Amino acid sequence: MAALDHILADIDRDLDGSLERLFALLRIPSISTDPAYAAECRRAAEWLRGDLAAIGFEASLSETGGHPVVLAHHQKPGAPHVLFYGHYDVQPVDPLDLWETPPFEPRMARLDDGRTVISARGACDDKGQVMTFIEACRAWKAVEGDLPVGVTILIEGAEENGSEHLPEWVAANRDALKADLALVCDTGMWDRDTPAITSSLRGLAYFEVFVTCADRDLHSGLFGGAAANPIRVLSRIVADLHDADGRVTLPGFYDGVRDTPPEVLAQWRDLDLTPESFLGTVGLSLPAGERGRMLIEQIQSRPTCDVNGIVGGYTGEGTKTVIAARASAKISFRLVDDQDPEALAESFRAFVQARIPADCSVEIVTHKGSRAIALPFDMPALNAAKAALAQEWGRAPVTIGSGGSIPIVGDFKRSLGLDTLLVGFGLDDDRVHSPNEKYDLQSFHKGTRSWARILAALAA
Amino acid sequence: MAALDHILADIDRDLDGSLERLFALLRIPSISTDPAYAAECRRAAEWLRGDLAAIGFEASLSETGGHPVVLAHHQKPGAPHVLFYGHYDVQPVDPLDLWETPPFEPRMARLDDGRTVISARGACDDKGQVMTFIEACRAWKAVEGDLPVGVTILIEGAEENGSEHLPEWVAANRDALKADLALVCDTGMWDRDTPAITSSLRGLAYFEVFVTCADRDLHSGLFGGAAANPIRVLSRIVADLHDADGRVTLPGFYDGVRDTPPEVLAQWRDLDLTPESFLGTVGLSLPAGERGRMLIEQIQSRPTCDVNGIVGGYTGEGTKTVIAARASAKISFRLVDDQDPEALAESFRAFVQARIPADCSVEIVTHKGSRAIALPFDMPALNAAKAALAQEWGRAPVTIGSGGSIPIVGDFKRSLGLDTLLVGFGLDDDRVHSPNEKYDLQSFHKGTRSWARILAALAA
Repeated sequence: MAALDHILADIDRDLDGSLERLFALLRIPSISTDPAYAAECRRAAEWLRGDLAAIGFEASLSETGGHPVVLAHHQKPGAPHVLFYGHYDVQPVDPLDLWETPPFEPRMARLDDGRTVISARGACDDKGQVMTFIEACRAWKAVEGDLPVGVTILIEGAEENGSEHLPEWVAANRDALKADLALVCDTGMWDRDTPAITSSLRGLAYFEVFVTCADRDLHSGLFGGAAANPIRVLSRIVADLHDADGRVTLPGFYDGVRDTPPEVLAQWRDLDLTPESFLGTVGLSLPAGERGRMLIEQIQSRPTCDVNGIVGGYTGEGTKTVIAARASAKISFRLVDDQDPEALAESFRAFVQARIPADCSVEIVTHKGSRAIALPFDMPALNAAKAALAQEWGRAPVTIGSGGSIPIVGDFKRSLGLDTLLVGFGLDDDRVHSPNEKYDLQSFHKGTRSWARILAALAA
Repeated sequence: MAALDHILADIDRDLDGSLERLFALLRIPSISTDPAYAAECRRAAEWLRGDLAAIGFEASLSETGGHPVVLAHHQKPGAPHVLFYGHYDVQPVDPLDLWETPPFEPRMARLDDGRTVISARGACDDKGQVMTFIEACRAWKAVEGDLPVGVTILIEGAEENGSEHLPEWVAANRDALKADLALVCDTGMWDRDTPAITSSLRGLAYFEVFVTCADRDLHSGLFGGAAANPIRVLSRIVADLHDADGRVTLPGFYDGVRDTPPEVLAQWRDLDLTPESFLGTVGLSLPAGERGRMLIEQIQSRPTCDVNGIVGGYTGEGTKTVIAARASAKISFRLVDDQDPEALAESFRAFVQARIPADCSVEIVTHKGSRAIALPFDMPALNAAKAALAQEWGRAPVTIGSGGSIPIVGDFKRSLGLDTLLVGFGLDDDRVHSPNEKYDLQSFHKGTRSWARILAALAA
């Protein structure tokens, strides 16, 4: 029996013990957004520090200006070194009355389809996911007395609150975070039986547009027909941003967007992501993106534009015959490949300005943008992780792009020069951020086994 | 000296007395929207009843379910009978700290340009305007012991609060309101020296559109590019409502819109309403209506479409990457001539529905619409009033359309079969509904003289 088999057997044998530890962590209401729970956040950090020290890590808390960071090291000179990232803070629990059982009293539950799940706030996001990695390390240490690679574990406590202090903390702690590769366990599987590696994250450009026409609200009876209406101006801008084929019309928008390699497209085609399975869960059925693109491309590899909010004029009950002086919209773009947020901002500004009547004015607020992030498709660590996941799950993992952004990944790249491998075991029905959050027992158990295998694979 | 000259001389002689009476009425804080002032409203009504009785009217208060109505009759068998309408209630006074002197302590003031004005809440809207008519009646009675026509005076107390009970009250009091013509004194002059008769009121059709796409708010990172966005759907609808020439694109929209007679157009052209004079006061300069139409047509004789409000998605501070489940807009149309609000509602519904993606839904709320109202250009009473005003002001009055609606005019037509002649002496700078409301002494004095002349002219 090879070392890895012993380790996997140890994980199986100690499943109850690992659940007990996870439950202990889940019982701590470490809600980062509410100052009333600051002591609980620190208690969760302290619990993790203690647990990591018990395994044999050199573990400490580090102050950030907000909730502390848990930092733990296992040195292995000569071997590759990985930096694992997760977070111990959780989302608020309101509305509390929608929870079937109290959010911080974790329990095992059985779903109608037979699945066993761990139910609690943070069961998946991100305590359950973090513990898959820690339990994998524990098993390695228990069986081998060592880990196959050097490991630094960084667990922050403010992810659900915007990780305000983390970028600065990372930049200030470059030496302590030295590694060859970053690992993040905060993403999901493709489906219940198919593991996934998130190899790209879309970037973001976010603008707020404030259109001002008259210098006061006007009566539409008196001025209707003669006075410029900022809601009309804004609606025209929004409507003009897409053509009839769903493509974004901003000049130069698609500069830097690369074609997806045919073999990746073929893989995606095989996945057969249907509108029913993806959009059906939220009450929709028709992909609204670029015509001629697969749904999976629309959400992963293609850049998009969305209006995130709009407001102007009278929005209360009933009617008011007003022509507003001002209207505003929040408009954002998801970026891929080499799209440049700054070039986009310039193009957007010109596009909007060209649609403002000469006697009206516009203010455009540009929020900090981020470029897209993508792992090279041929990166060795990516292939090692793929092989390990395939062995555990009995089928090849899917390499997917995430439509969202995980800002820390950009910081790892910028501050530490690290690529990040994102492997997670969440499922679409985990209700993260919602009442009755859960994590499948299979995700927790096979997730732990997966990390044990990945650690081995990364050493090779 | 003809009777009318004596009456006008009496008005001049008694100007101080008429101002004293107006001031007494202005001192009563008859704010109809605030229940705390209900007794003051009744006191204003009682004051008017007493004043009208003193002149010789058969005057009483009539209960409406809200503030009482003042109803006064002067019968003149064999002569035409007019129904005069005004309101004794006033707007709230906040923000109080912007008033130069207390709103219910009326005073005479001198403007920088030499005009003498009456300053108080209600000085113009509508106590000052109402008293021009009553003082004209008083002078007629004082000099002639009679009025030249039969007169019913109806002064309500809830105009600033939507006249909630009035339509029902009017319908229930048809017999008491029997007349040949209605007169309303709640409108304005063309400019300081040019009187105006408002001979048409635009109608209104008002819709609320609620677009629902997904069954919950979505994360734009995950769903952006694939999920329909209700703000985009709504913006497209709003943008599509006008073509590049500013014309409304709804099929059949212009059915029932008549050409303005060339002589009226010529009169309007002579008025030379410039963008500077009209739009310049609110910080605009470019007429935004139908291309090829004069500004005065855009605001008076042409139907229009405006978005009065829009809201969807995240509208708070900063950014949120959300795709809203729902967005809504309030969209209204100003109608002219024979445009049919019901036909419009049908066309609008089809127009909107055609722009809703098949997997999204829309709810359209149709508010009670009103047709446009227009006096026949050749109506005898209109011509009589024009001649009377021309004599008083030394220049021909302008016949204008009002972009707004005065709902009671529709009720007079519907319930009583009456056309309404709208003559008023307000000016654009009267600050009605705002702090430091005023009424020019000239408006009050020459307004009273104007009504004395109009009453004579209507008897002829």
